[in-house]
This record gives sequence, structure tokens and C-alpha cells, in this order.
Amino acid sequence: MPPVPSQENATSGTAANASGRLRRNSGRPKGADSAARREEILATAAQVFSEEGYRGTSMSSVARACGLSQTGLLHHFATKDVLLGAVMEWRDAQDMALLDGLDQGVPRAWAAVERLERLVRLNTRQPGMIRLFTTLAGEATAHDHPANSWLLEHHRLAEEMIRRAFREAEEDGRLSADAPVDSLVRCLVATMDGLQMQWLSDPDYDGAAMADDFGALIRTIRERWEA
Amino acid sequence: MPPVPSQENATSGTAANASGRLRRNSGRPKGADSAARREEILATAAQVFSEEGYRGTSMSSVARACGLSQTGLLHHFATKDVLLGAVMEWRDAQDMALLDGLDQGVPRAWAAVERLERLVRLNTRQPGMIRLFTTLAGEATAHDHPANSWLLEHHRLAEEMIRRAFREAEEDGRLSADAPVDSLVRCLVATMDGLQMQWLSDPDYDGAAMADDFGALIRTIRERWEA
Repeated sequence: MPPVPSQENATSGTAANASGRLRRNSGRPKGADSAARREEILATAAQVFSEEGYRGTSMSSVARACGLSQTGLLHHFATKDVLLGAVMEWRDAQDMALLDGLDQGVPRAWAAVERLERLVRLNTRQPGMIRLFTTLAGEATAHDHPANSWLLEHHRLAEEMIRRAFREAEEDGRLSADAPVDSLVRCLVATMDGLQMQWLSDPDYDGAAMADDFGALIRTIRERWEA
Repeated sequence: MPPVPSQENATSGTAANASGRLRRNSGRPKGADSAARREEILATAAQVFSEEGYRGTSMSSVARACGLSQTGLLHHFATKDVLLGAVMEWRDAQDMALLDGLDQGVPRAWAAVERLERLVRLNTRQPGMIRLFTTLAGEATAHDHPANSWLLEHHRLAEEMIRRAFREAEEDGRLSADAPVDSLVRCLVATMDGLQMQWLSDPDYDGAAMADDFGALIRTIRERWEA
């Protein structure tokens, strides 16, 4: 990730003193140039968080990685919590864009369950995003961690997407009445998280193998529970 | 976790200066008293690591939590890496003890696969151990993290245990010839890791529900692939 040009050091320190406080709540300074800089900071901060974790990261180390003074960084993001929130929002937006680009037309029912394998395969093209998720999720299991509610929401949305697919299969008369849907939904989300942990940690486990493994589990579930 | 009595401050500082270096490699100072103290330090350090992560933990914060001076701590563990290694070894020994106490006689084949559900259920009694694993595993996906090789080995041992169960099912003629064993093994390990992450992070998801969910996946796999 290229650092923001260091001339930033000279200019934004003053701006932060003048208006940094006002901008804390809106979160997005005006002007295309500022928006572009904000985007660059988010990308750089995402990388630092993914390598060092939230707790292991200081605002000064993010500023350094961005080629900014700490005051310059505070101009855009007033606290480490605010920066973390913006980074996770940015990450989720990228996830959604990936998901939207996955299909021509939206699959439903079992086809939507099977689409998860393609999602896992596609995810391997953005290891930085997966590393960011895995590193932060590990810390964010603590209830007092600033990313805990984000983690819960992330899981809730994933579950909702998968549960809808099962509901559609049921509507289509293609799901056994005794299928343990809630358990399968929980387990599918868990498997994706756990496989990605194995993929990131083990250099001998490649992304294609991970997606194949997950596909085998999806087929197992479909073959057992499709009516 | 009760701190070690603070009189330790006065005694072990000198001992560390005199013999700390010699003891670094053996890892275990002589004498029952010292062994008990070491055990207390490991339990306390495990708690600090599980809350703050490896990167977020300093030796001085571990020393403080133990009621030791930093020199006193260094007497037992010369570096943070050495302490981490000892904590993970201690954690794995507790895991093994848990596993050994799980059954009268060792189950085999499908019964051994189903035993995983009981293992997950039993694990919920030691949330501190699970939190330690989950927090450190998140960081340790980085290849240069000092716990990366521990994470790989932990996964390798878990896979080996499950693969053996499938092999036994095959020997007994109770496994379909086309069962995707390697994929199922990977996915079962991943599901345990991922469910535990959900359990730790979500106060509304209790341990019994987690074990039930995992049991539903195990039964799905068995019902699909048992011959």
C-alpha cells in the first residue's frame, strides 16, 4: 500500500487544529482530494491492523505508515476507535461489492448455498481483507473490545444470507422437514471463518484447496437435506 | 487467577541475576516450590495473553499480574517468546488431560467422530483456555508470529485425530468409498474453531447450543457418508 505523500505533514496539522473537532462526527471531510486521502488512509490502516491487531497498533504507527504526522491523521480520524470503525465499514463495503459482482442475477435456495463456495474462492484473491477479519475477530471475541459489535453484526448478516437460502429451499419444497437449519447456518459461517484461519496460517494450504474443501461440506449438507 | 505472593519481589530478583541465564534453556527451575510458582505464573500469563493477545502483552504487565518484579519474572522465563511457548505447552497439556478424561476406553471410527461433540461441550467449561486459543490463533495466522508453528501443529494434531477415526470407519467397512475424507477433516476442525469464536463473542449464544449445532453437523456427515 503506497504511503500518502509526505507533504501532507506540513498542511493537515493546522487544518486538524482548526476543524478536526467539527469533523469528528460527520467522519467525511469535504472535497474529492480529502475523500481520496481518507480512502488511502483506510487502506493503509487496514493493512496495519491486519498485521498488528487493534491492540498492537498505535495511532502513531498508522500515521507513520501513511506518511502523515500524528496530528495529520487525527485530522481525519479523531481516535483509534473511530479509525477502526471506519476501517471495518470500508472492509464490509468491499465485501459487499465482491458479493454483488459474483453472479449475473441472484441465485436462490440451494444455488444460493452453493454460491458460498464461490465466495470463499473469490475471497482468496483478497488475502489482506481476510487477514484483517481474522486478526481482529480473534481479539474482538472480548465483549469490551471496540470491534465486538462489528463482529456480531458481521456474523448476523452472514447467517441471515444463508438462512434466507434455506428458507427459499423450503418454499420450493426442496428441503427436508427435519433439516436442522439453524445449526447448519451457524456451522457454515463457522467453517468459513475456521478454514480461512487455516489458509492464512498454513503456507502449504492453498486457496483453491480451501474452496474445494468447503464445497465438499456444502455438497454433504445438500445431499443429506435436499428433499 | 490469584497473584503470586508479592514477597517474591524480594527473593527472586537476586536469584535471576545469579542463575537466570543458566536456567533459560532447561526451562524448569529445580524444586517443588519453584515448580508450583512456575505453574502459577503460567496460569496468570495465560489469562493476560487471552485478554490482551501476545502482541498487546508486555513482560512488565505479566509480572505485575503475577505480583512479581520484572526481574523476578525473567528468572522463570527469559523472554516473552519463551513465556508464550511455555504457556501454549501448558495449555495443550490441559487439553490432552481433558481429552483423556472424556471416555472410559477409547472410542473408534464413527463413535470417535461423534466424540468431538462431547469435546466441544466439555471445552465450554474452560472458557479461559478457549479464549487463549482464539485470541492467539487470530494473531498467529501471520507466518512470522512466534505462535504460528504452534498453531499449525495444533491443527495438525486435531486433523490427525479425526483422520484416524475416518480410517477406522473405512477399515470397519462403514465409510462410503467416495467420502471426501480430507475435506471433511479440514472442515470439522474449522467448524470447531469458528463456533468457539461465535460462542466467545456472542453472550446470547451459549455453550450447550454450540455443542448441539456442532453435533448436528457431525450427524449430517455421518448420515451422508456412513456405509
